[in-house]
Amino acid sequence: MTEYKLALVGFGGVNRALAQLIAERNESWKSELGFTLKIVGVTDLFLGSVIRREGLDAGLLASLPAVKGALAQVPGGDGEAFNESVIKHCGADIVVEATFTNPVDGEPATSFCRWALEGGKHVVTTNKGPIALHGAELKELARRNNVAFEYEGSVMSGTPVIRLAKQSLAGSSMVGFEGILNGTSNFVLTRMEGGLGFAEAVSEAQAQGYAEADPTADVEGHDVRLKVVILANELLDAKLTVSDVSCSGISSLSLDDIESARRDGARWKLIGAATRHADGSVSASVGPRLLNNDHPLAGISGATNAVSFTTGLLGAVTVSGPGAGRTETAFALLSDIINLHQSVAHN
Amino acid sequence: MTEYKLALVGFGGVNRALAQLIAERNESWKSELGFTLKIVGVTDLFLGSVIRREGLDAGLLASLPAVKGALAQVPGGDGEAFNESVIKHCGADIVVEATFTNPVDGEPATSFCRWALEGGKHVVTTNKGPIALHGAELKELARRNNVAFEYEGSVMSGTPVIRLAKQSLAGSSMVGFEGILNGTSNFVLTRMEGGLGFAEAVSEAQAQGYAEADPTADVEGHDVRLKVVILANELLDAKLTVSDVSCSGISSLSLDDIESARRDGARWKLIGAATRHADGSVSASVGPRLLNNDHPLAGISGATNAVSFTTGLLGAVTVSGPGAGRTETAFALLSDIINLHQSVAHN
Repeated sequence: MTEYKLALVGFGGVNRALAQLIAERNESWKSELGFTLKIVGVTDLFLGSVIRREGLDAGLLASLPAVKGALAQVPGGDGEAFNESVIKHCGADIVVEATFTNPVDGEPATSFCRWALEGGKHVVTTNKGPIALHGAELKELARRNNVAFEYEGSVMSGTPVIRLAKQSLAGSSMVGFEGILNGTSNFVLTRMEGGLGFAEAVSEAQAQGYAEADPTADVEGHDVRLKVVILANELLDAKLTVSDVSCSGISSLSLDDIESARRDGARWKLIGAATRHADGSVSASVGPRLLNNDHPLAGISGATNAVSFTTGLLGAVTVSGPGAGRTETAFALLSDIINLHQSVAHN
Repeated sequence: MTEYKLALVGFGGVNRALAQLIAERNESWKSELGFTLKIVGVTDLFLGSVIRREGLDAGLLASLPAVKGALAQVPGGDGEAFNESVIKHCGADIVVEATFTNPVDGEPATSFCRWALEGGKHVVTTNKGPIALHGAELKELARRNNVAFEYEGSVMSGTPVIRLAKQSLAGSSMVGFEGILNGTSNFVLTRMEGGLGFAEAVSEAQAQGYAEADPTADVEGHDVRLKVVILANELLDAKLTVSDVSCSGISSLSLDDIESARRDGARWKLIGAATRHADGSVSASVGPRLLNNDHPLAGISGATNAVSFTTGLLGAVTVSGPGAGRTETAFALLSDIINLHQSVAHN
């Protein structure tokens, strides 16, 4: 039985949900997936850090209070976050990076990924920053060190998008995609269709936990733009940077716009899209778009996300599912580990 | 460079479209997919058969007239279909089975698959009959002979369903699925929403090439039932036979039913579904179901197909795309070959 030793970097909701899954399901994964997981290190800027090569109690970790320095309560733990020590020296096979997204330079997550890959450790991450801003460099680093670097959860949490496109749709001649890639803005648009004004709808999204205190990144398209960069580079072999993607949000849409769309049998959606042109160049954009009701993305309501791939051999293929959520995003990390297990087992 | 030698069994629209893809794309597949394909045998009850171990001209095959005995026009060809000789003795690595679906006993396709698997050849097929009726036996035969047996195209043509569920959603704790799995019946329901009566809508489907001369299998749910058996056995570890699946069609729905649904914010859809219960048993059904407009399948219109998977960790994940079409189904065969190439390359 293969056992992978994990270092959890960032211990917010997502890695905590992963610890909970490990506590509940490790035994059943033996037969179902062919491996088990053991947490040997955890580090978090707020909670502190701990290393235990014999393995930490996943259930205990999952139930730690979210208070400053809480990892000091674990035997051998410390209230300080020794990120570099945990990543480099806890004996992990896989570094599970789930810290916050920094849209400016991707730090400190990018350094965490670099340390791990340079040390010959696999990396799985849900973090958009390192992939959108430094994806090519990190993939090359993984290749040189002969380790896996997987990031399904960077787009649409655990809903399969990157692997669906790269594995199941290989050979289909993909030429573009359009997506509803931000649950907050789609929730806001759906509530505006129910008659709420923009500001009221944002307040409701905040009350329900969809939107941050500062909703700018969600409603102005900045979050979607990072995902468009990731998908375009991954699926269309583009070499886009964030500044290559034009970006506008939904804050300029009025109730009149939305009602007038309804009368015309259409809906406004915030769409992130990219297209590969005949000369091989790729153009990409984020902005509100009026979709007729028969468009594959027109029926996607509330916080659900979806991507419609345009392929030469199949036409449009669309996948929809959750775009966020702790357990949903933790599943993305699990699916990354399943995928690396299959590659490693085969090599 | 790996070259796979193919025997094409059944040379109707689907295998003809595959031959056309080979003629157009074999060169580009070298770098894109890491292999090339060579057709070394073709057999078809109507067109005859041909074996040529050095390889047949895929473009010539694709352009053959669809007249009885046409394969006699190919050098070395014969107007008679020597199925067994082609399958057993043409030197193929992969038998590409795309004959008609026989919903009663799956023949002759099941025998074709058996001969190939017993002879140590990989099999890829788009045929529902052998999988729905003899899937467990054929999978075991493939396992014993250490060859691949792939059939993504048996459900929803080339739209990824089986591999999406088994690969990308592995570990997600799938407990059921609901699908719109027949394009003809969904087209008929969509046209009835536009005001056509059932008989008129069926006639229009026939005129547009969606429905057969005898539309019974499509509109009474028999086609969907085979697909439900395939998906339930594959994704939910069921051991269902066709008679385990209750089945009713859409012919009893009236325009009044459809209009009354519309007034209630709902749509009638022909749904094939299966659920795994807490005791491990699986129940499955095919029948018209009233879906609220916010159901993930409610927005699927016309000939498009879709499946919504119910998972423990992600909730509902839905994929939609073409459910039929020659090139679309030929892509399913290509994707099966891509998948077996990756498995073979790794073993």
